[in-house]
Amino acid sequence: MSKVNLQRLGETVFQSSDRVSAELLALTYGSTVKQLLVDYEEPDEVNKQLDQMGYNIGIRLIEDVIANSKIYTISSFVDSAEIVAKVAFKMYLGVVANTVDWNSDKTEFSLQFDDNPLTEFTELPDRYSDLWYANILCGIIRGAYEMVQMKVECKYTKCVLRGDDTNEIRIVLREMLLERPPLDDE
Amino acid sequence: MSKVNLQRLGETVFQSSDRVSAELLALTYGSTVKQLLVDYEEPDEVNKQLDQMGYNIGIRLIEDVIANSKIYTISSFVDSAEIVAKVAFKMYLGVVANTVDWNSDKTEFSLQFDDNPLTEFTELPDRYSDLWYANILCGIIRGAYEMVQMKVECKYTKCVLRGDDTNEIRIVLREMLLERPPLDDE
Repeated sequence: MSKVNLQRLGETVFQSSDRVSAELLALTYGSTVKQLLVDYEEPDEVNKQLDQMGYNIGIRLIEDVIANSKIYTISSFVDSAEIVAKVAFKMYLGVVANTVDWNSDKTEFSLQFDDNPLTEFTELPDRYSDLWYANILCGIIRGAYEMVQMKVECKYTKCVLRGDDTNEIRIVLREMLLERPPLDDE
Repeated sequence: MSKVNLQRLGETVFQSSDRVSAELLALTYGSTVKQLLVDYEEPDEVNKQLDQMGYNIGIRLIEDVIANSKIYTISSFVDSAEIVAKVAFKMYLGVVANTVDWNSDKTEFSLQFDDNPLTEFTELPDRYSDLWYANILCGIIRGAYEMVQMKVECKYTKCVLRGDDTNEIRIVLREMLLERPPLDDE
């Protein structure tokens, strides 16, 4: 499917699914991060916890991406990138992302997005300069990929809360797991 | 404003504000509750923590309810109830609630709502039977009321996760705080 068609698909699925206020999500997520900072203190440890939380969410969300978008096969890592950027991001966060900086082997790319509903209303105090505030997204992406049999590494590389001009997550394909069954039997 | 008009207002504000997937909120909120259960173990203590988290959110959200709905004065507790049920619930959760079981003094009512996006995809294990899973809502309501100079008590009384046929929060007006300034100076 072309980028434009995927973008249209993302929009359609987004419009037809149950939605809530982005602000409520942002503030609820903020409470979570705050709680983790109290519990674990070290930003690096909080990054890990957020990633783990995200992973548990990602392995559940992917079923919905597949069911609602009716994308039954993701034939390659290259295709998957556009589905994450144009369909999944739109479905869940209401924003689209771009895929940039592919390596020559087509096993790595960066997901770039200017708007991130999770970071609205947030400012990072200086002492948390090592925190990747929205790191839950890395975990979600990693978990979702694993369910379609691709082992990836996800790493935040830019965040507007740190003064960067955009948000960026690097996604690296590490391994194609076993032969993939069809995503849906029907 | 009549109930019907308030409901229409809630719908309009909801449609015009930034929205995200209800599922993402539900799963993110679920992670938060899970983390609190690890940290505090006792469901009662988790109820308190959720209430406190909600309070911190409520004192921020109310500004937005006022700004976006252009409701500049909330003249009485009775009026406030319908604004919570028809405007604020819709704005943030995408669902409307009903106000029922007023006491004769009109200082107490119950907010009843069949759908609660926060509890989607959730089942409560028996050992958490004392947990009010969505107790963050009580805190949000309490915080929001305090910012319009009404001290209220909020208590979950029914939750579908516990097998009740609906969700219900009891709201009791305890005190009108000092003379209220206009909500917005403009």
